Amino acid sequence: MKNWKTVKSKVVFECKYLKILDEDFLTPSGKNGKYYILQRNDFVVVIAKDKNNFYLIKQFRYTTKSKLVEFIAGEIEKGETPLKAARRELQEEAGIRAKKFENLGWYYACKGCSKQKGYVFLAEDLDFIKQNPDEMESEGGIKVVRFKISEIKKMIKNGKIDDNDTLSAFCLFMLKY
Amino acid sequence: MKNWKTVKSKVVFECKYLKILDEDFLTPSGKNGKYYILQRNDFVVVIAKDKNNFYLIKQFRYTTKSKLVEFIAGEIEKGETPLKAARRELQEEAGIRAKKFENLGWYYACKGCSKQKGYVFLAEDLDFIKQNPDEMESEGGIKVVRFKISEIKKMIKNGKIDDNDTLSAFCLFMLKY
Repeated sequence: MKNWKTVKSKVVFECKYLKILDEDFLTPSGKNGKYYILQRNDFVVVIAKDKNNFYLIKQFRYTTKSKLVEFIAGEIEKGETPLKAARRELQEEAGIRAKKFENLGWYYACKGCSKQKGYVFLAEDLDFIKQNPDEMESEGGIKVVRFKISEIKKMIKNGKIDDNDTLSAFCLFMLKY
Repeated sequence: MKNWKTVKSKVVFECKYLKILDEDFLTPSGKNGKYYILQRNDFVVVIAKDKNNFYLIKQFRYTTKSKLVEFIAGEIEKGETPLKAARRELQEEAGIRAKKFENLGWYYACKGCSKQKGYVFLAEDLDFIKQNPDEMESEGGIKVVRFKISEIKKMIKNGKIDDNDTLSAFCLFMLKY
């Protein structure tokens, strides 16, 4: 599968958060193809767990026009490792410091248009300090919400948790623990 | 949360597969914000199951430059219901007809930039007919692969299955069955 050849790659849209690349390629059998690739930073998803409690966030999302309950998550900044981003997001979004981090795996977030990856961490041994959300997170009323595992399962089943990344991260957690 | 007001919405990029909207908004407290919204069609994910066997697809993805093992999935076309799209994708991608479909739920696929939804179906009572993939799926060597549930769990744990939608759909399946 080394012989899919990109013959043209051109940025056709660019803003602070994403890029769109218009790419022409040749398949192994020599057919012409075209793809619009979405480029976004990789991100982390952090499952904050203390004994039997899980700490998630609830915030208004302008994209969905609704309040979502999600695991703490955020983009990996330039020069950051996934672990460092996990530490930072945990503190900024939820005001939590963790003594122990475990990498549960990663996945392609949106394979149909992007190679963006989500890295999943389990954070344990928690200290609760001070939340430091960005302006739009504050405006969205971001707050930390605590649930037992049985409550998370129920909320996923009845659609109260409806975020792809939270479901995937929880899948990785359930298969490991 | 009804008082986030969109004050401008402009298409800044458009192609056959996606649109980018540049939106200015006002938060409830009157702060100005800007968001780049990705618009893509909603899609379906189909878990094809026959007794103890699950039928997934394996194909080369130009986006990730790798072969992915995924549940059957595809965009909902204009005028289609999610169920109709599930039937069509199951037949086109995998050559499978199912007598029984069950809706397992839906999720926001990419809440950070889009309101795109993925609808998950469990398809049972299967008949194997003829695959009818599109040109690029054929070029990507799309093929149907059969696994037991224990094999799927193992592949997710060891990273051999690394697709967000497959993990989320499997999470919904595991919580229901």
